[in-house]
Amino acid sequence: MSGINPDLQKERNAATFDPYELTIWWDGGDEKHKKRKALEKLFLEDPELEDVLPLSYMSHKQLYESSIRKAVLISNKLRDLRDIGELSVDTYTALLGGSLGFALLKEGNPLSVHFVMFVPTILGQGTIDQQIEWLGKAWALNIIGTYAQTELGHGTFLRGLETRADYDEKTQQFVLNSPTLTAYKWWPGGLGHTANHAVVVAQLYTMGKFRGLAPFIVQIRDEETHMPMPGIDIGEIGTKLGMKSGNNGYLGFKNVRVPLNHMLMKNQQVLSDGTYIPPKNSALTYGTMMFVRVVLIRDASLALAKASTIAIRYSAVRRQSPIDPNKPEPQIMDHTTQQLKIFPQVAKAIVFRANGDIIYDMYTHVSQEIEKGALERLPEMHALSCCLKAVCSADAASGIEMCRLACGGHGYMDCSNFPTLYGMGTAVCTYEGENTVMLLQTARYLVKAYGQALNPQMQLVPTVAYIKEIIEKPEFVNFDGSPEAIVRAFQYVAANKIRIAYDRLEQQRKKGAIFEVAANRCGIEMTQAAELHARAFLALTALTELQALSRKVSPALGEIFQLLLELYLVDACLQRIGDFLRFIKLTEQDVNRLELHLQECLKRLRVNAVALVDGFDLHDRILDSALGAYDGNVYEKIFAAAKKSPLNEEPVNVSFHKYLKPLMKSNL
Amino acid sequence: MSGINPDLQKERNAATFDPYELTIWWDGGDEKHKKRKALEKLFLEDPELEDVLPLSYMSHKQLYESSIRKAVLISNKLRDLRDIGELSVDTYTALLGGSLGFALLKEGNPLSVHFVMFVPTILGQGTIDQQIEWLGKAWALNIIGTYAQTELGHGTFLRGLETRADYDEKTQQFVLNSPTLTAYKWWPGGLGHTANHAVVVAQLYTMGKFRGLAPFIVQIRDEETHMPMPGIDIGEIGTKLGMKSGNNGYLGFKNVRVPLNHMLMKNQQVLSDGTYIPPKNSALTYGTMMFVRVVLIRDASLALAKASTIAIRYSAVRRQSPIDPNKPEPQIMDHTTQQLKIFPQVAKAIVFRANGDIIYDMYTHVSQEIEKGALERLPEMHALSCCLKAVCSADAASGIEMCRLACGGHGYMDCSNFPTLYGMGTAVCTYEGENTVMLLQTARYLVKAYGQALNPQMQLVPTVAYIKEIIEKPEFVNFDGSPEAIVRAFQYVAANKIRIAYDRLEQQRKKGAIFEVAANRCGIEMTQAAELHARAFLALTALTELQALSRKVSPALGEIFQLLLELYLVDACLQRIGDFLRFIKLTEQDVNRLELHLQECLKRLRVNAVALVDGFDLHDRILDSALGAYDGNVYEKIFAAAKKSPLNEEPVNVSFHKYLKPLMKSNL
Repeated sequence: MSGINPDLQKERNAATFDPYELTIWWDGGDEKHKKRKALEKLFLEDPELEDVLPLSYMSHKQLYESSIRKAVLISNKLRDLRDIGELSVDTYTALLGGSLGFALLKEGNPLSVHFVMFVPTILGQGTIDQQIEWLGKAWALNIIGTYAQTELGHGTFLRGLETRADYDEKTQQFVLNSPTLTAYKWWPGGLGHTANHAVVVAQLYTMGKFRGLAPFIVQIRDEETHMPMPGIDIGEIGTKLGMKSGNNGYLGFKNVRVPLNHMLMKNQQVLSDGTYIPPKNSALTYGTMMFVRVVLIRDASLALAKASTIAIRYSAVRRQSPIDPNKPEPQIMDHTTQQLKIFPQVAKAIVFRANGDIIYDMYTHVSQEIEKGALERLPEMHALSCCLKAVCSADAASGIEMCRLACGGHGYMDCSNFPTLYGMGTAVCTYEGENTVMLLQTARYLVKAYGQALNPQMQLVPTVAYIKEIIEKPEFVNFDGSPEAIVRAFQYVAANKIRIAYDRLEQQRKKGAIFEVAANRCGIEMTQAAELHARAFLALTALTELQALSRKVSPALGEIFQLLLELYLVDACLQRIGDFLRFIKLTEQDVNRLELHLQECLKRLRVNAVALVDGFDLHDRILDSALGAYDGNVYEKIFAAAKKSPLNEEPVNVSFHKYLKPLMKSNL
Repeated sequence: MSGINPDLQKERNAATFDPYELTIWWDGGDEKHKKRKALEKLFLEDPELEDVLPLSYMSHKQLYESSIRKAVLISNKLRDLRDIGELSVDTYTALLGGSLGFALLKEGNPLSVHFVMFVPTILGQGTIDQQIEWLGKAWALNIIGTYAQTELGHGTFLRGLETRADYDEKTQQFVLNSPTLTAYKWWPGGLGHTANHAVVVAQLYTMGKFRGLAPFIVQIRDEETHMPMPGIDIGEIGTKLGMKSGNNGYLGFKNVRVPLNHMLMKNQQVLSDGTYIPPKNSALTYGTMMFVRVVLIRDASLALAKASTIAIRYSAVRRQSPIDPNKPEPQIMDHTTQQLKIFPQVAKAIVFRANGDIIYDMYTHVSQEIEKGALERLPEMHALSCCLKAVCSADAASGIEMCRLACGGHGYMDCSNFPTLYGMGTAVCTYEGENTVMLLQTARYLVKAYGQALNPQMQLVPTVAYIKEIIEKPEFVNFDGSPEAIVRAFQYVAANKIRIAYDRLEQQRKKGAIFEVAANRCGIEMTQAAELHARAFLALTALTELQALSRKVSPALGEIFQLLLELYLVDACLQRIGDFLRFIKLTEQDVNRLELHLQECLKRLRVNAVALVDGFDLHDRILDSALGAYDGNVYEKIFAAAKKSPLNEEPVNVSFHKYLKPLMKSNL
């Protein structure tokens, strides 16, 4: 079990660049790299934070109890850091999400919604008085909160929520009720048995009139006994594909009363007599949603980095099926079909990462503008974050599965960690805005932009400017298969997809349909247009960012970035070749050239594949995979994982005596 | 909770055909239908065969023990049926695989390999004497067997297996050894703690010479104590994405001796002096593999039927996001994008089913020919079963996930049953021949056929005859978007993909590569060619079978089959539109027409969607889904499932007192 697997070592020796240089970029610079390493040392090498048993062997209840133990340990360590003045927002981010957070509580942390949603909501929607009252207790974890918005009957469509809060002027209290079963809150993390407070989003009524949605702080469990408060029906929603220790809960209200000042009143107010003062604008709510989506793009990159690290290391160690019958079985990474499954996932990890950085900068910029009252770029930013969230999360989920399938039967075992990676990864396609709904939101923006583009007087904002260029110069010429040509072609294809959605919408409207009905009838065209818009943006940022990066780093690493760029673009293009052939006059020779270019990229990447994923520098505990550990002792680790099964502790299971023996002995 | 959900009832009232007529076809006729219903009543309504707790709440160990309890109960019920003369092979098939088997032990039956592999191997490879010795005990379950072939280091590539059996003339025994860690047997179902015998496949050596692979019957556990036999290292391999109660095990040998007559000697023999008599031909081994793949095509159909039933019923009950803002929220099945996700999966379920029937008939026919010594059609049948296994299993797995995602957050919960359906469904992509390896095997056959097609004197066998037609008439004309045109176009595209693979192989060989090396370099082209061959076959059989069916059934149901055929073909065509546009001169108008035709199909299917899945007549216990039950009381059932969580049995979990309270009270 000691030492590095020789096949893996051979790969490392053959690499043409220094993975450490990649690591520094991946970490965002030298200083952040050092901080990350220190934090990982502090948390990942603490034996108390290890599980006595792999999670997959635990019962659901054991898993919850073990996750609370660890979540509290982590919180205590965070307090210790605070006490010595070493606690930053970055530390919270790393511990609650990101690679470190996922490593420590890989099926979800029941306390994370407290930090990620409960505290920020009070910050964003509470008045100064309310912040003073609640934030101290919340930061110190004297109370544990969650954020209760989604209901059993309604998720993405917020206006459909049914929980209601009626203001009672006599007592100056709100009365919360769940009028139906479908009004039950459903999904909030930590709600089941962990939190004792919640921000509850409800339909507000004052003076008998409906006022819209409002957030309320509600105590849901007693601080001493943790028993549910009167009128509160609470529990957890049960097991899921992933996030198994998130303690997602349900919550019903029966005449639960909270005082007037428990409504978060920064943006809208209810006065003691019931007078309602509506919010000035809802832009800031958008802001939070956008921020979360921006973070999810980075998470998609991270998920692909983990999956491809595991698959590439395994493919360097695993030998199977001769290529040349006169030679020994090759490393499976030498099979071209294997390269096609895995290498594009590494390229996506890098491209999504570069993209996440750009989007983050754009988001910061737009947020600053919003705070100054300039809302012009808000719809553009919203549209972009929606479609990128959808495309990146979908690509990450399918990329993880592609890597898993590339590892055959061993990828199917929990000890590979792929099942958990997928369970966590695919969840992103649904939460924070279901992907199809996200694409439709972007599409509405795009068809509007297309309408503006038809007007010669109108200027378009930067991320959709290509639509106008293409309307003005409608023929695509000179496709030479270069990265620049592929990016131009993506924009051309996207613009044409938007045109088709626009035209079909117009046709429906001419037939008398209102916009919304027309938009539903053209839903397929609209989602496709939005997807292509995202892909065109990803292609463009891949080009500009990776080329810029290539010039900043050493020539050896620069070549790798350039190669990844080509691989990403050619693969993306061939994946959507139908759209390209539909709108652009590509010859059979063009397509052949693209296919051979893709194979050329795979072949060129082969020698550096292991070094590339080494560059992600993912700690063995973060990978948590018998197939993907740094030392590549795959078979020993798989075997060791099997030995941990509680069933293997006894040579004979009790069921033999109880059931099998009587069966075998009867009928003799 | 009583009564049928009114939205679902409304759908049923509006249907234009009688689902019962579909059921009879789906079940294979009146008689089989009655038998199925009787068997389901006997097994699914037996309260003893219900679990006290949903499986997802159990620990791994509990899950195993509960599965043994049920597997033994089922075996006893099968004995009872035998005793009254009502046990047929169909009953075994239904109970060990198929919808009934999956319903009773949804994460796998530790006894199924005994019936599906152990017994058939003795039948197929044992001499008459060996059959007499072993089969009685095996059928009566006086011994429990498994089939140990795959090893930690080798799966699909059998020649790489490392377990060895050396014949010792002096004692007339074979000595079995696992010379390395990677030689450990890995994966056999029931091997962990259940079976006491195994058929072990090992590399045979006699008289100091290597002889090839041979099967041996080995006793692995004591019949009285169930303790591992001397020299046997045995246990289970741990948890997996699915098949969690299959008790898949590992097995190592250290000088384990078995007598000469424990080698199964029907096809090859070792005499007492060590003389080796090789098998005459290996065709019959092919036969079993083909049979299993044929069964897997049916399983793919069944998996899609289950997934689409759940998704369609849920989509009829769930209301969300207004289409027309002046109307109440619609059933989500009214969203065009939702229809696109789910309806093609129903069409695939029907097409794969029709296809499975044809392949089954072909297989039966070819098997009969083989038994008469006529092996001509064996390679064709082998090639076809490989690529269909790959394409149908991949489509089923992605179809299940599409249905799950279409059910949003609720689809992510275990109570939807989608996580288990996917875990079981995606496994098929890897077992019984990994899909990429399967496609490559088909591709080798196809490029050989292409070479023959270039020779004007050569005739091609029926399933590849289209290659020759297209070489002789190389221009595709008159694409009118009709089913017939799409089928012709699929063949045309497949033939062109095969041509490209062939040409690129030839180019590589001209550069000096041997066939195997060239085939690896062209692996991408080859797998694509094989995939298209499978899709062309599926399209053709969809056309012939569903049109023939349409004429046999009532006009109302005939119309449904016709519509499903159109939907299947147009969707399949648009999914691969890049290939179509590459080889066929389609105009923008052609593509537009296909897109609008697809939307038209979705719209026409809408009214009958619920009736269609009702026609699959899947018992609520088979679906095992809060979202998909016949009565459509989705929210009540989701809530009831949550209530079953052991965490919800106590209002306050022990971890509050142990961890959370100290955390909240410190730092006050």
